[in-house]
Amino acid sequence: MSGTLYGIGLGPGDPELMTLKAHRLISNADVVAYPALIGGKSFARSIAAEALKDGVREIVIEVPMQVERAPAQAAYDLGAAAIADVLATGQDVVLLCEGDPLFYGSFMYIQARMADRFAVVVVPGVNSVNASAAMAALPLVARNEVLNVLPGPMESVEMTARIEVADAVAIMKVGRHLAKIRSVLDELGLVDRAIYVERATLSDQKVMPLVDAPDAAPYFSMILVTKGADPWL
Amino acid sequence: MSGTLYGIGLGPGDPELMTLKAHRLISNADVVAYPALIGGKSFARSIAAEALKDGVREIVIEVPMQVERAPAQAAYDLGAAAIADVLATGQDVVLLCEGDPLFYGSFMYIQARMADRFAVVVVPGVNSVNASAAMAALPLVARNEVLNVLPGPMESVEMTARIEVADAVAIMKVGRHLAKIRSVLDELGLVDRAIYVERATLSDQKVMPLVDAPDAAPYFSMILVTKGADPWL
Repeated sequence: MSGTLYGIGLGPGDPELMTLKAHRLISNADVVAYPALIGGKSFARSIAAEALKDGVREIVIEVPMQVERAPAQAAYDLGAAAIADVLATGQDVVLLCEGDPLFYGSFMYIQARMADRFAVVVVPGVNSVNASAAMAALPLVARNEVLNVLPGPMESVEMTARIEVADAVAIMKVGRHLAKIRSVLDELGLVDRAIYVERATLSDQKVMPLVDAPDAAPYFSMILVTKGADPWL
Repeated sequence: MSGTLYGIGLGPGDPELMTLKAHRLISNADVVAYPALIGGKSFARSIAAEALKDGVREIVIEVPMQVERAPAQAAYDLGAAAIADVLATGQDVVLLCEGDPLFYGSFMYIQARMADRFAVVVVPGVNSVNASAAMAALPLVARNEVLNVLPGPMESVEMTARIEVADAVAIMKVGRHLAKIRSVLDELGLVDRAIYVERATLSDQKVMPLVDAPDAAPYFSMILVTKGADPWL
């Protein structure tokens, strides 16, 4: 009997926003795996740290941060092979995932490499869009409104068109695209309705109107825009 | 000193998908409030039931299920007034919310009625889109993909246009709109890629290809479509 791969959503950063199920599975895990930057610094591990058992075996998937795909693909190949070795012995592996595993997460790359050979169970987590809205106490979507989740790197023309047709927009991975996004929202007359959230739920989080946001935004930042199209109360 | 209103996301239904923070706040609460159907049946309360303290005071917000808005507005007025009475005495109130409080939830209607008078804290929860994707083990969005969250009641022409421009789509509140949605996806050549999820994470959940789905879908059902536009692994 092979082991099971658990893809566990850890939520947005505050360890208390982990689900009870995630906490139980991590606390009982003999083997965990997680993505990390080269050198080993891992946001996922830092969220789960308090829950890890003493002496837990850790499989670190060191993922290079670069535009080329091949080096990251090689890293996922290596990580998947190490996880598969453990699963083949009958032990389970708990893969730690920031946010939700299937929502812009790297879990999918591991899943794709093993789902045909091993049982995979996914535990959903609180995603960064909901976490950012909560930190801003911003009603995101109600009744029959439409939400668009967009990536920050999207080009201005396309971003403009997509924001125009949505009732609410979450723009992920803002980082160095902040000035472009601000200009798009300005042209649409929406810049005063936009909220900037950086490192939501962490101790150093920032929540402010986009017009007050710093020009240098980190990767883990988000812009939320709601139009209040359905003012039903 | 007035009390604080906590809007607590309970997650999609499995009580173990509540966050540690939600569980702590609910377990310590002296007063909880929740929406319920007329007569008192409440999905939110059923998720939180095991965590409630003995003797907790319960404020039931009975919301009529009808198309007209005035009766529901009156119900939220009543609920907000009952909650405000407690907050004014200095006691906190924990408002139980299915899924995430600010993502298609009724919490917003209470929040709008008190945010100018009382402190409000929102605790995000696992939303039904992420929960449904997890139950289907379906990679939802990766890298720079776009997710559209659409309401089932949307008209065919508009739904078609929005699905065409997204990499992934979650269609909420399917219910009696299932046949229409199936026909939209069929015309787009996407019906074979669509997954139907009913009552995600509950003991009686159903997960299946949309082509196999029953014609009569409950309100708490969802259709997920991914195009695999960015096949990067």
